[in-house]
Formats: sequence, structure tokens, C-alpha cells
Amino acid sequence: MSQDPLVVFTPSGKRGRFPSGTPVLTAARQLGVDLDSVCGGRGICSKCQITPSYGEFSKHGVTVHEDALSDWNKVEERYDQKRGLKPGRRLGCQAQIMGDVVVDVPPESQVHRQVVRKAASARVIAMDPATRLYFVEVDEPDMHEPTGDLERLERALRREWGIEAIRCDQTLLTRIQPVLRKGKFQVTVALHKSHTDTIARVVEIWPGLHESGLYGLAIDLGSTTVAAHLTDLDTGEVKASAGIMNPQIRFGEDLMSRVSYAMMNPGGEREMTAAVRDALNTLALEISAEAGIEPHLIVETVFVCNPVMHHLLLGIDPVELGQAPFALATSESISMDARDLDLTAINPRARTYILPCIAGHVGADAAAVALSEEPGKSEDLVLVVDVGTNAEILLGDTSRVLACSSPTGPAFEGAQISSGQRAAPGAIEAIRIDPETKEPRFRVIGSDKWSDEDGFAEETAATGITGICGSGIIEAVAELRMAGLMDDSGLIGSAAATGTPRCVAEGRTHAYLVHDASAEGGPRITVNQGDIRAIQLAKSALYAGARLLMDERGVDKVDRVVLAGAFGAHISPKHAMVLGMIPDVPLDKVTSAGNAAGTGARIALCNVGARIEIERVVRQITKVETAIEPRFQEHFVAANAIPHKTDPFPELKKIAPLPEVSFNTGSGGDGAEGGRRRRRRKV
Amino acid sequence: MSQDPLVVFTPSGKRGRFPSGTPVLTAARQLGVDLDSVCGGRGICSKCQITPSYGEFSKHGVTVHEDALSDWNKVEERYDQKRGLKPGRRLGCQAQIMGDVVVDVPPESQVHRQVVRKAASARVIAMDPATRLYFVEVDEPDMHEPTGDLERLERALRREWGIEAIRCDQTLLTRIQPVLRKGKFQVTVALHKSHTDTIARVVEIWPGLHESGLYGLAIDLGSTTVAAHLTDLDTGEVKASAGIMNPQIRFGEDLMSRVSYAMMNPGGEREMTAAVRDALNTLALEISAEAGIEPHLIVETVFVCNPVMHHLLLGIDPVELGQAPFALATSESISMDARDLDLTAINPRARTYILPCIAGHVGADAAAVALSEEPGKSEDLVLVVDVGTNAEILLGDTSRVLACSSPTGPAFEGAQISSGQRAAPGAIEAIRIDPETKEPRFRVIGSDKWSDEDGFAEETAATGITGICGSGIIEAVAELRMAGLMDDSGLIGSAAATGTPRCVAEGRTHAYLVHDASAEGGPRITVNQGDIRAIQLAKSALYAGARLLMDERGVDKVDRVVLAGAFGAHISPKHAMVLGMIPDVPLDKVTSAGNAAGTGARIALCNVGARIEIERVVRQITKVETAIEPRFQEHFVAANAIPHKTDPFPELKKIAPLPEVSFNTGSGGDGAEGGRRRRRRKV
Repeated sequence: MSQDPLVVFTPSGKRGRFPSGTPVLTAARQLGVDLDSVCGGRGICSKCQITPSYGEFSKHGVTVHEDALSDWNKVEERYDQKRGLKPGRRLGCQAQIMGDVVVDVPPESQVHRQVVRKAASARVIAMDPATRLYFVEVDEPDMHEPTGDLERLERALRREWGIEAIRCDQTLLTRIQPVLRKGKFQVTVALHKSHTDTIARVVEIWPGLHESGLYGLAIDLGSTTVAAHLTDLDTGEVKASAGIMNPQIRFGEDLMSRVSYAMMNPGGEREMTAAVRDALNTLALEISAEAGIEPHLIVETVFVCNPVMHHLLLGIDPVELGQAPFALATSESISMDARDLDLTAINPRARTYILPCIAGHVGADAAAVALSEEPGKSEDLVLVVDVGTNAEILLGDTSRVLACSSPTGPAFEGAQISSGQRAAPGAIEAIRIDPETKEPRFRVIGSDKWSDEDGFAEETAATGITGICGSGIIEAVAELRMAGLMDDSGLIGSAAATGTPRCVAEGRTHAYLVHDASAEGGPRITVNQGDIRAIQLAKSALYAGARLLMDERGVDKVDRVVLAGAFGAHISPKHAMVLGMIPDVPLDKVTSAGNAAGTGARIALCNVGARIEIERVVRQITKVETAIEPRFQEHFVAANAIPHKTDPFPELKKIAPLPEVSFNTGSGGDGAEGGRRRRRRKV
Repeated sequence: MSQDPLVVFTPSGKRGRFPSGTPVLTAARQLGVDLDSVCGGRGICSKCQITPSYGEFSKHGVTVHEDALSDWNKVEERYDQKRGLKPGRRLGCQAQIMGDVVVDVPPESQVHRQVVRKAASARVIAMDPATRLYFVEVDEPDMHEPTGDLERLERALRREWGIEAIRCDQTLLTRIQPVLRKGKFQVTVALHKSHTDTIARVVEIWPGLHESGLYGLAIDLGSTTVAAHLTDLDTGEVKASAGIMNPQIRFGEDLMSRVSYAMMNPGGEREMTAAVRDALNTLALEISAEAGIEPHLIVETVFVCNPVMHHLLLGIDPVELGQAPFALATSESISMDARDLDLTAINPRARTYILPCIAGHVGADAAAVALSEEPGKSEDLVLVVDVGTNAEILLGDTSRVLACSSPTGPAFEGAQISSGQRAAPGAIEAIRIDPETKEPRFRVIGSDKWSDEDGFAEETAATGITGICGSGIIEAVAELRMAGLMDDSGLIGSAAATGTPRCVAEGRTHAYLVHDASAEGGPRITVNQGDIRAIQLAKSALYAGARLLMDERGVDKVDRVVLAGAFGAHISPKHAMVLGMIPDVPLDKVTSAGNAAGTGARIALCNVGARIEIERVVRQITKVETAIEPRFQEHFVAANAIPHKTDPFPELKKIAPLPEVSFNTGSGGDGAEGGRRRRRRKV
């Protein structure tokens, strides 16, 4: 008797011999080949599509004849007529192995298919979501062997999918009987298998084969904006992205004001919790509508956020985060029912995963950045900076990762700046000052043209020129310094000292006039001395945080810098270094990671193993608390200056000395009480 | 060097040698002696009280000197002043072993103390509740080692109590920080450890030592009444019992009418669910008020109920229970949050356990009876009958247990009886008819006197004589037969045939006049031919169910009968046998178990092991479905007669033949469709 046919799967290279007539799906399962199937091999879900190759394969030592697989059968024919099979494709559950064969599993048929998450970095997310679909045939009820419908469903899941234990929420118990009968006891079940629990939760049940997919929301819950990515849990594809303002802004622009609001107003934290939960429901509905997807099909959410938002999302009074020792109510990851967060717009059994917090001031958003940027896997020493109202700073390589948070305040986002505004159409986002003429040119959001280019007026006519956003103000300050209009200490020179009428007097100090449309009733956009001070405070805080981590690590330089945060993408590395926001590294060693926190959320949404990974990583991160480190204060003060090659007008220093830094970290010699009262730390 | 002192614990007899100075509690723990402690040996909870014995103990071979334990210390002194210690008592955590000693652990210091649950049977419940108190000292937060308060609480529970994993609901997350700070990081935690889960749930947290106890509700959710026992989860003591009417009665008196209501009215099941959940909240508040206990301290509930009530409690449409094959939505036990049943009156983190159902018509109430009466542990063959609107019938011994449910209808409860009423003051509950004079005498609820005794009129003046309740009507029918006023077929004779004016004409048949107050404007209480028929139907159904189990078991007699159900306590065994309700056994072999279902609920509430036990037992019970057994129909018809020694007026049979039985079980030759349409089964 001749040998059983040999089957070789690509790309895995797994191979084995199987008796003639074995379905390809069966062989794949026995070999542990990653071949998807929802219907369990019944020829109805089409997830197990494969492509047989014919010809000679020296690498695999196989010659494949045309009859190596059984003939195209009726199930495949029907499927092809109804839905269409790509040429050369077969259904793995129908095609039987009849002779030696090489079978390719295309990416879309792999359960753990990999999704390129960012063209630039070519990194991938391997799909391994917590919630998946399972099609089963349930035994019909039998009076002589009475068992519940749920118990027979459980039996089917055990028999067909090896799932040992399920838990069915009572909100679904009410639907099991009608759905089973509607589906003639064939149903699709969405099961959530947590990484911390051995019991699978039944999230949803549909009659017959459910073909409308399953979706998840990766949510970056920021102090100012809430951004969500609606993600297909099967393919990893982002179907829609949307953001809304965090309505908690009405209780305080920055986090510390929100903590104060909760302290001053009994029940204030409950108001803020209700506001953000409302907004999340609105966001879920909007994003589903945009993607044309039933909100009911959203079965998972993942949250990343800073500690204050984390607590306010959970309904926890953030008061402890406003005072030393900055104790989190809970630091580890949280797995819970989305409905317990009042997320009623999505599936009522949807689960929520909240990434772990790193420390009282270093939140789940920083953990998400660590998951996305993986400083702990970097061979060279990388500094990852997520710039927002707070900066989350990570420093590390394969040997060790350190993290801290630094209270940069809202200046980098254009807030508390005289002509500042959020990054929106009409905002000046880039600016250059000619070192000779001292004249500015700029670009506004909504147009790719610079202000001195043809067509700029036309392209900006609709939005107007309304103010300066975060990246614009950073560039403006750096350009002022490079154009010799400002000294080391940050003082803008007078028109006389600088020789340009753009330097205008404002009280005892000066401002630089960027754009003046006041004659036409438009805005008069300047960068004034207060703005420079705000940026100095912010950049000093950021730099001091990075330096503190470098001290802890015992280094005085880093190999590369990654700027993360929605805002990170827009900062010019050169200007950031001129300003002294980040330690000096070669310009080509500064990269932007985009919204790394949001990406981290997406990874945790698509891959349950990433949750285990980040929980492990967070435990190993060295936490550095900026608020209690005297050296932070030292670095902060030292970082205030904006040194450049030449000092254009040294005499000015004597006129207006740098005002005392009003930023106080709450530590130091003035005692805890005084420190606490006076502290303006933005947590 | 001499040997370490020997300590012998009574009543366990456990013994061991420990270094001088070892606290008694420590020794007890190391030996596995059942000695309670909530505070972990800090001398504040007083749970570990022990009594040292002095003198000579030949049994233990120990001579105990007065100095065998360390001196009374300050902690004990303070405790004694504040709360008082019984003479001879010591605190086990304070008293140190200094020499050989015999230490008695009094029952109230045992964790698994046993509670006598019924004086009559001397059976006990060993306390082993799912929810217990744990006192812990939590590490204070440390900025240099940032962890959440929850994680430090978890660490304390692991360190002090060996509890590996906890889950904290987000409704409690909001309270952890203030409670820890209020208790100066000493807190008492109520943890629920399920028998199906390895993770302990945090149910409640209190600052310092919580001394107001923990309570549970054992709830027997009947079709007509809902009865609850508020039970101390530490001592097992029932602090209060209360019952209310099931408000679902307005949707239908019996279960089948409620199923019909759900079928005929879209959303009808939701109305009924809301009604019963409302009532449960009312009941919880009433019973807590009665016991003087904060409803918040109720942290567990256990439910027993029939399958229709089970489904309606859970919000499941009971439609499938109204038609073959009578499929339950779920049959196994259910552990869930009480709040998911809208039980908002009690602790918001309270857990609920619902006993498993045995089959589509044999519910968690029958399982509770099995747990309480343990037919599977009986050496002789016992028939357990729980009589209510449905009868749950169990037959078994150590070799095998069988169960069925029989649709007796509401007649046994006084419903659908011409002069019938519920068992309430004023109802005739017992009746005797003199075989010579044919005159009745009776007793009404609210008085111990018979109607022919002195003082009866006075004692019943307040309530009046208002009707006949279930036990009264059973006795009346049996007495009519024994007095020769009724023939085998159940026909009441005429005044002429019986020679008593109490037999009065009513249309074509006759009635027996029990009490006539119509002259004074009061009721005229009779037992008429329709009443006899209703009782005949009910008793035939009950008997047929018992016989069916006996057939299945292959026996034609049983060794003993247990009558359970609130109503079981009031049925006279003699009358029940005259009527043919139960198979003949010697009168002394018929016992009453009281509310066995309620007792089963209490056992499951107090002992988590009992939950494992009943789940195992239920899986092994042989389920017999009466509705599809042709033999049930045969037994039912055969059981209709009420044979007695003599047949007083055989000629009557020809006049009024027994009307065709309108009760139809839905099986038999007329086809499933017809059977389903015509079925009047009371599930």
C-alpha cells in the first residue's frame, strides 16, 4: 500500500500525511495551521478559503498534479454563484486531499492575520481579538433528557470548538430560546475570552450564520478630545475614526482644575463622569453611523487615558490624584462590562478593557505609548515623548524602561496663549522669520501654501487666519530666537534694538506682530512676552522630565527621540531642539509616532496577548515621580533659557528680569501644606 | 531541654506541640482547628474566644496547671471592660501557650459551627457561607512604589488571609479610597467566594472592624406567595421571616395562565418580571425593617422556585414551558449579581444564587426539597411530596432518586372551590363529620377550639367564619366519604338517600352544608359537587404522579411519605390516605417536612458546599415527564374514585355518571397539535 498523500501548507511550511479524502481544513487543524473557520467546516462561512498550487516545488520536494484535491463540489459551486470565489480559491472544508499537494493560506484566511498598522514603520498587529464568532449546531430539546437550551448550546460549543465553560449574561438568557428556534438550532455565537479568565462570555447570539462582522472601539480619552477608532475585529481594519471634545472642559480646561472642581463641589466627580459617559455614547453612535455599522455590533472597547480621566471615567473621585502621595484608586488593568460605564449605545454585553496605569501621574495613555512604541525592545536608548496637556515621557532600551509625566500645561496646545487657538482650520501651524528682514511667512491649517506663495489668499479665504495653534507657537518662539529678535532669557527686543517695526511695545515688554488684519476688522496676531513665558514653562517642564529620566538612567544623551501624541506629528524637530524641548540628537534621529496612545489602544483591542504583554511591561517600568524630585525643580529652572549662538541685545536683561517661576511642584522646603495649597501642578 | 508544651483542642481532639509563647489562635490554625477570626489575631474582633480547661484529663493524657496559658493581658482586659467576656473565656489570639493545655472551642467560635435547623428532625446546617468578613491592614500609598489602593488591599488580603485573587466591582472602586483613609488603612472587607469561580468578589468594605454582621435572604418564590428568611450569615440564625403575595397573580392565578398571558400580550413577560422584582424589593425592605437590619447588610440571596417563576424572575419569556417539549432556557444553577435582577433594595454588590431546575416542569423548588429532605440519602424508599399549585414529587433512596411534577391545580390551596379561600384567619382548616348524626364540627384558623367546644364563638368572633381553606376541603371530602354521604365516584347523596338535611339540592346534584350564617347576613358554606370534582382531579394528579415514579422504580409501595410545602404541615395524613392523595403507608410513616423548599434555600444560603451537592444530585436525578407518559393518564383516570369500605348508595351512579375529565395532559392519541391547543395543564 502506498503512503498517504503529503500536504504542505504555505506560508507556515507545516506539513503532514493524511488519508485520501481528508478535508484540507481538517488537516490544517491537526497540524496547527492558522486557517480560519467560523462555521466549523460546514461550507457556509467561507473563512477557510485556500489556494492549491500545482506544478513542481523543489523547496518542498513535492510535485503536485491537477487531481491532488477532490473536484469542485456542489457546496463550493453554490457558494461561488452566491458570493463569488476568487479564481484558484477552494473552500478548505470542502476540498479533500487526494494526492500530494501544496496549499497556500492567504492572509485573509488566517485567524492571526497580521495587519500593517502604519505604512511608515511597517509594523504589524497580529490579529488575536478577545471576541470571536463561533457557528454551532445545537441539539434540539428532548423531554426525555431535559436540559436547558443554554446547556445544550454550551454542549455544542464544547463539542465543536473545545470551549469548556461559558457564562451567559441574563440580558441574553432572555433571547437564547427565540434565537435558537429562529435559526433552527443553528446559531452564531460571539464569545469573549478574557486573558484573565478561563470562562468565555457569551456576548451575542444570532440565528444561522452571522455575516455582519464584529467591531471594537479603541478610545483615546484625552483631557481635551476623545478620539475613537472603530475597528473590524476580524480584519483589524479601521472602518472609521472620529473625535469629539471632552465635555468635561466646562468643569475645567486642565486636569488640575477638574480635580479642584471635584474637591470644591460635592458630587462634582459624578457630574464629570456623567458628562464623559454621555459623550462616549454620542461618539459611539456617530462613529457607527459614519461607518454604516450597527452600534450593536460593537462588542469591545479599549480605553487609554491619563489617571484623572481614568478615575473620572470609572466614577472615582480624583481627589487623591491632586495631592501627595498621588495614590491611584486602582493601577492595574480593568476588564469590565461596558454597560457598567453606562455605554448603552453599543452592545449591552460589550466588554471594556482599560490599560493599566503606570503611576499616579503616568496613566494608561503612557502605557499605550509603551505598547505601541516598545521602548523596552529598542536596542538603542530611545526617548519617547507624548506631548499633550501633560507630557508622558518614556526612556529606555532592552535593559530597562523608565517613565514619568511632566506637567507641561496647555501652552503646547495653543491654550493660554494670547493669539492661541486649537489646531483647527485657520490656525497658523508653521511659521518662518527671515533672519535678515525679520519678516514672517506662515502656513495655516486648511492650505498647503505658505503665506508668501501665490494662491495663499484664495486658499485661506474661507477659513481666514484666526490664530496660532500649538505647533505654530513653538515654531514662532524658536524662529524669534534664531532671527535674533529674542535673547537667551526669552525677552523680545524692542523695535529699536531689533530694527524691525514688527517688534511692538506692549506695556513694559514687547510683542512680535505676525499678522495684522485689524484694518479689515480681522484679528491682530502677535506673540507676546506672556506667550514666550508660557512656552518656556512648558518646554522647561518637558525637558526637565526627560533629563530626570536620563539622570535616573545615568546618561547625558539619548540615541533617538520619538515624538508621539496627535500633536507630535506636527512639531518640527529642528524647532523643538532650538527651543530646548528635547535633548539634542541628530535631526534624523527624531521621528514622529503619530497618535501612539491611540495606536496602543488599537493593538490592545486587536490582540489579547498585547494585554498580557503591557501588563507585564508596566510592572517592570521604573516609575519616576517628578513632583517629589528636587532635581526636577533644578532641571526645570536650568532649562528656562533659550540659548543660541549669539546674544543679540544683552543690555535688556537688566531691564526686565525673568519673573519668578510660579510653577511649584508641591515638594521642597515650604512644607507639604503650603506646597499643596500653592501647587499649580497640572496632573 | 524539655519538650514544647502540648495543646489539645476540644471538641475536635486535634493536638500538637508548640513553642512556649505561641498564641492559641496560631496553634489552632496550624492544626487546622476550626477557630474563627475576622481581625486576623489583632484582639479586636473577639471571634476567637476559647475556654481553657484546668485539671487532669485522662482522655487526653494531659494535666493542665493554672499557668498553662499566659496571663490575662491588656487587650483582653480592655475587651472585657468594653464588651464583656464570659467567665473563663480568653481571646485565642492573645492567650499564649505556656504549658500543656486543653482548650475548648465553643460553638460560637467555630467558623463551621452547626445550626440546628429543625428541632423535630435534629438535622443541622454546617455554616460555610460564600460571603465572609476579613479584616486587613493595608499598606499606605508610597510615591516611590506607586500602586493603586485596590492593589494594596489585594496584597493585604493575600498576605494576611492567603486570598489569591479578588475582583472589585466598579461601584465599589469609587469607595475604596475614602474608606481606606477613614479607617486609617485598617478595613473590613466582605468577600464572596463562589463555588464556581476562583476569584473572590469584594462585596463591601468598611473602615475599621465591621461589627454589624452580614445577612442573606433565602427566598421561596412561589406562584402565589413569596416567602423570605433573613438569615445571619455568621450564625445561621433566622432573624426574620416574611411573606408577601406574588403580584403576578393579577396576570393569572396559576402558572399556565401566566404563560398564556405572556403568549397573548407582547411584552407581557416583562410586565410580570417587573412586578415580581418590585415585590422582592418591597419584601427585602420589610423583612430588614422587621429584623432591624440595614438592607445594605444583605449581601446574598438564594432563590428556589418552579420553572415558570424561575424564567419570569430572570426576565425570560416562559412560552417554551407551555408547550412540548417544555424546554427550559437554562437548567443549571445560576450565580449572578442581585442588581441584574433589579434587586436594588439590598447591597448593590449582593450576589444571587438560583438552584438548578430538574426539568421543564420540575423546578429549583423541587431541587431545594431534594437538598432539604435528601431522599438520595434515605435507606428506605421515601416519597416526598411538595404540595402546592403544582406538586413536586420525589421518590428515592440511596440507590436512585426519581422526580416529576404533577399539575394538581389550585384546589388544594382553596382556589376554584365554591366556598374556598386561602389559609387565613376565619378559614375552616379542619372538619369532622359524625358518621351517626352526619353533623359537622370544625376548627377555623385563628382559634384552637373546635366549633362544638365552649368559647369557640368568642374566639372566632373577630375573624368570623369565612370559608374553607385547602386542608379543610381535603378533610371535608374525606369525611363526607367516611360518613357515607358520598359514593366511590364522588357523588354526594340526596337528603333522602343520606337521611340528613345537610345534604341539600343544588341543580341536578347535591351539596353538603357545613355552616350557614346567611340568616345573620354571613356566608353559607357548603361543599358542592363541583368542589368534589376539583379535589378529585387534584388528588388523582398527585397520586398518578407518585404512581408513575413508583412504576419507573418498579415498586408498588413505598416505605414512608414526607409531605412538604407550607401546606403539607396542615394535611391530616389519615384524610390524605382516605382521599387517595398518597399511596397507603402506615400512618406513623407519614411525616411533615414543613416548608422544605424554603429550608433547602436556607441550606444553600448558609453552606456553599450544599450548592455543589445539589448541582451534583440534580444531574443524577431521573426525570420523569408526566405530560408525555400514557401511564400517567391511566393512573390519573384510575385514581379518580374514592373507594371506601362500603358503597352507601350505589343506585346514584346511574343517575349522574362521573363527568368526563376535562383535564388533559396534552399527550395521547389526538396528535401534538390538538393536544397542545386543548391542554389545560397547570405547569
